[in-house]
Amino acid sequence: MAMDGYRGFLGLLVSALLVGFLSVLFTLIWVLHYREGLGWDGTALEFNWHPVLVVTGFVFIQGIAIIVYRLPWTWKCSKLLMKSIHAGLHTIAAILAIISLVAVFDFHNAKNIPNMYSLHSWVGLTVVILYILKLLLGVSIFLLPWAPLSLRALVMPLHVYSGLLIFGTVIATVLMGVTEKLIFALSGSKYSTSPPEGVFTNTLGLLIVVFGALIFWIVTRPQWQRPKEPNSIFLQPNGGSQEGVEGSAINFSNVDKSDSELNNEAAARKRNFIIDEAGQRSTM
Amino acid sequence: MAMDGYRGFLGLLVSALLVGFLSVLFTLIWVLHYREGLGWDGTALEFNWHPVLVVTGFVFIQGIAIIVYRLPWTWKCSKLLMKSIHAGLHTIAAILAIISLVAVFDFHNAKNIPNMYSLHSWVGLTVVILYILKLLLGVSIFLLPWAPLSLRALVMPLHVYSGLLIFGTVIATVLMGVTEKLIFALSGSKYSTSPPEGVFTNTLGLLIVVFGALIFWIVTRPQWQRPKEPNSIFLQPNGGSQEGVEGSAINFSNVDKSDSELNNEAAARKRNFIIDEAGQRSTM
Repeated sequence: MAMDGYRGFLGLLVSALLVGFLSVLFTLIWVLHYREGLGWDGTALEFNWHPVLVVTGFVFIQGIAIIVYRLPWTWKCSKLLMKSIHAGLHTIAAILAIISLVAVFDFHNAKNIPNMYSLHSWVGLTVVILYILKLLLGVSIFLLPWAPLSLRALVMPLHVYSGLLIFGTVIATVLMGVTEKLIFALSGSKYSTSPPEGVFTNTLGLLIVVFGALIFWIVTRPQWQRPKEPNSIFLQPNGGSQEGVEGSAINFSNVDKSDSELNNEAAARKRNFIIDEAGQRSTM
Repeated sequence: MAMDGYRGFLGLLVSALLVGFLSVLFTLIWVLHYREGLGWDGTALEFNWHPVLVVTGFVFIQGIAIIVYRLPWTWKCSKLLMKSIHAGLHTIAAILAIISLVAVFDFHNAKNIPNMYSLHSWVGLTVVILYILKLLLGVSIFLLPWAPLSLRALVMPLHVYSGLLIFGTVIATVLMGVTEKLIFALSGSKYSTSPPEGVFTNTLGLLIVVFGALIFWIVTRPQWQRPKEPNSIFLQPNGGSQEGVEGSAINFSNVDKSDSELNNEAAARKRNFIIDEAGQRSTM
């Protein structure tokens, strides 16, 4: 299926994959070369699973899950399949995030280091809990077939907003974690002498910021959204199917309208509707 | 002028102002009560201007600058006035950010502490430089009268995206800064015993995250955007004036079209056009 600005999309997608892959690679090099390596024995080796699992799952895989609907090669796949992949990737990310927490709590308990005293831990645990709640809510409302379209329309803005907010907050939490770990690991002011580990791991932090920026750009370009499937409007005029609302571009002022109103309105619209963006109109 | 969901907007605006104000207040209490106070003498008193100016200017004032077009009481004001207020608030934020950097460099130099070794400093300096460049570019293209509408339409998506990205990155940088300062100030593992200063300043970090989340929600609700002024389309049919594009909801696939094409299309549209949101269509 044709996509506006396909080359630009491809360039950014490849960049995001490359930067994401480099972030994971840098994290592995950090713990394997500069730190103690990996293990599961209550020592620093176990702690080291924390950054590896967070960057792999909670940053890289979550980022891919966010943009998976944007891949034009998937536009011929069914919506249900794509929703399952979206939810599946987020589930993998959630599981890795949970294991990463177990690693750090185990390590703290074995070493008699208090848990949950730092801002990193406060924000981090909150965001993991919110991520799991959001995943359960998302599966219940958008993947399973029983939620009415009106509920989906009502929840969708919050689903999109909270997804991007959580992703951004995860990145902020990772940056705090890198900061904390470098200060502890390079103690006695060693960090301030810019040793190779400091420079290398700061660069990892920058890579993660760039990865987040690329994902945000890709996901907020309206021209790269999965196209509506106009047939679905006419096939399911009463919106009873979970695919039924695909054809409608929801006007947020309409979220309280009934399913059939939403679908009638959707059917009346052209496919290439007018797209706006936050602030677009008001800052020209 | 009427606004959809006015009460919700008002509630969120008051919450944002309250949380933003509390963030500034908490920062002041932190440096005045828990730390050494404020001064300009190369000691820790001078350093303490850094968090105060960053949270006041680069977080609170920047946040208000981002949502200033959303205030419905300003919708009767001219677009030029609102652009000037938007740019003016960002300028104040930039000046406070620059002074906050001077404070920390002065302090480091006086104490022989190296500059620019931490991830906080790398991301922070980058974001201040990008903020200033963006401000200069924004004033040149959107406030001054000579940029053609086609250029404005081309740059606007980047202006909106980079504005929100910078704001989010500033908040992430503040969280790193709080983490760094608490570890240094509460050294000898004092931070891990959760002393009052640690709990208080972690709470400041949470307040700043909540402030950011509120600003993001307010600015990304399409129904709270400043309405187009349909008259402006007909008054300036060729889009020669800087107000001329107000009436058009830009379709991003159209950004390469000429000014008059943009305006002709705009005139053909109804005011209450269909609004979409990142991911909206594709995840229902």
